[in-house]
Amino acid sequence: MMMYDLIGSGCIADEMVPWMPFTPYSDLVHVKVFKADPVRGEVISLLRSPPGTELPKHHHSGTVIVYTVQGRWKYLEHDWVAGPGSVVFETASTRHTPLSLADGTEDVITLNIVSGELLFLDANDQVVATENWRTAVERYLAYCRGQGIAHRDITSFNDGKWSRCW
Amino acid sequence: MMMYDLIGSGCIADEMVPWMPFTPYSDLVHVKVFKADPVRGEVISLLRSPPGTELPKHHHSGTVIVYTVQGRWKYLEHDWVAGPGSVVFETASTRHTPLSLADGTEDVITLNIVSGELLFLDANDQVVATENWRTAVERYLAYCRGQGIAHRDITSFNDGKWSRCW
Amino acid sequence: MMMYDLIGSGCIADEMVPWMPFTPYSDLVHVKVFKADPVRGEVISLLRSPPGTELPKHHHSGTVIVYTVQGRWKYLEHDWVAGPGSVVFETASTRHTPLSLADGTEDVITLNIVSGELLFLDANDQVVATENWRTAVERYLAYCRGQGIAHRDITSFNDGKWSRCW
Amino acid sequence: MMMYDLIGSGCIADEMVPWMPFTPYSDLVHVKVFKADPVRGEVISLLRSPPGTELPKHHHSGTVIVYTVQGRWKYLEHDWVAGPGSVVFETASTRHTPLSLADGTEDVITLNIVSGELLFLDANDQVVATENWRTAVERYLAYCRGQGIAHRDITSFNDGKWSRCW
Repeated sequence: MMMYDLIGSGCIADEMVPWMPFTPYSDLVHVKVFKADPVRGEVISLLRSPPGTELPKHHHSGTVIVYTVQGRWKYLEHDWVAGPGSVVFETASTRHTPLSLADGTEDVITLNIVSGELLFLDANDQVVATENWRTAVERYLAYCRGQGIAHRDITSFNDGKWSRCW
Repeated sequence: MMMYDLIGSGCIADEMVPWMPFTPYSDLVHVKVFKADPVRGEVISLLRSPPGTELPKHHHSGTVIVYTVQGRWKYLEHDWVAGPGSVVFETASTRHTPLSLADGTEDVITLNIVSGELLFLDANDQVVATENWRTAVERYLAYCRGQGIAHRDITSFNDGKWSRCW
Repeated sequence: MMMYDLIGSGCIADEMVPWMPFTPYSDLVHVKVFKADPVRGEVISLLRSPPGTELPKHHHSGTVIVYTVQGRWKYLEHDWVAGPGSVVFETASTRHTPLSLADGTEDVITLNIVSGELLFLDANDQVVATENWRTAVERYLAYCRGQGIAHRDITSFNDGKWSRCW
Repeated sequence: MMMYDLIGSGCIADEMVPWMPFTPYSDLVHVKVFKADPVRGEVISLLRSPPGTELPKHHHSGTVIVYTVQGRWKYLEHDWVAGPGSVVFETASTRHTPLSLADGTEDVITLNIVSGELLFLDANDQVVATENWRTAVERYLAYCRGQGIAHRDITSFNDGKWSRCW
């Protein structure tokens, strides 16, 4: 058997993966990881932030695509505000500080397709924490363990074929 | 000046780009193109289909990520149904026939991040039409011309810096 | 066990994978496939062409990076000639006709990193054949079978961990 | 004019870009940058190391493809040795310490296709330096300035069309 026998197109429903607190960066912000690619390092996730929440400044090593499902947010470093249905394309090796606007009444929810790593920075631009495909998996596994729920293999690319092999 | 001086992270709001008929495949299905990368061939778009619409079978050369904003759809070749908030990951060089479910009352709207090309196939699996970054740009320019509206540069990666150069 | 437990950085030595005739395009051109990614569709291979060989015109859906190990070659559609040590970067959805220069005495050998598919075209620009990660795997398996040699899993990304699982 | 009008497939010959000392990591190791993609963060370069040279341990955020042109090298963390003509595929978010073998008489030369960033680490795995598309460009510009030679636009993707615009 070769690896490609287990590869195929699959669907992860919204309710198949849990919202998890985005600690230690915030207790109020939650993240939901759909897919973490251990080969290319791409992570597909949703982020949910109450109005008026700021996340630490971060640097990302690759591209980021952000689709805003609801709410309005911005980066302190840019003039534009991203609203519902907008697409933000962030080029590689840029940095910014996310802020959900305080004028909203509903949470900001964004779909994020991140290639590579987020490096969180302190006031002196020193790296204080890293988020990547590996930490996404560890967060997910720890959360499932803590909640006593079964985990799925968010690192594979198939329609359930892989899990039938073990 | 080097190319990278004009590169940066930008936001394309929903209303900045138009819904266009996805002819010749369907008059009922509409597409909205946010970005078409002329280097890597990635196209970021929304697709909107009334309930019960079938699109022709297609093969895609690279990966496709589909986030469902509203409605329910499936591929004839797969058992799963994609509903609101789901993430579909399609691996390279696979083929399928999209169908928006007939039981819905609202249009199906999906965000599609396509790397490479869609090759539409006839009943004998022969290639009868191609969609890629180039056809996405041509469709957009033709639509803007036809409607008498100004076009944006959906092929650049910046925050307006590029257009200030010309 | 999750998929990522089997992922890691590995080395494929030159002698681990065979030179195979690049039929039906040419009996004189040979290809050596190192890696075929069934998720992203990237194929890493060497191509070896005697001086004065022309391959059919093709369209490629994604990017191609070509590093020339030895010899000189060109595309009929471009003025530049690629010599030893050069790097060619081909952008998505472009097409050209490769020709190894006739003035050489040694074979042209290039390393090719292809994202997506090559579509070979006839004189009317109709698609007559496709090369992608899947055909690369099929060519490799058929060749190994025909030669009575064991195949490796060129579709996995690890250091032998995967094959120890079966 | 749109950005895509300036995009096309080009060739960078070996002699078009200079060997530069890979300071501050080593005075003996040299790097030659062919292309630095300011959108996706991919850097294509050659690295040349005398036999018996060790580079600092690093973490890379994305994938790395290494094709060995001549010489033999290894990572301290892996058993395999990469020789001429081999292909190494390094998966995202892995780390290792490169060492050119001391038994060689010629320099080790590798082609490296790096997606994302290299983070150099100290003995406590703290990030002490970063290499990415931006530092590659800065190194190149500083070197050209220091040597009094004209620079090329290694961040664009064309056949000279871009530079004719300015």
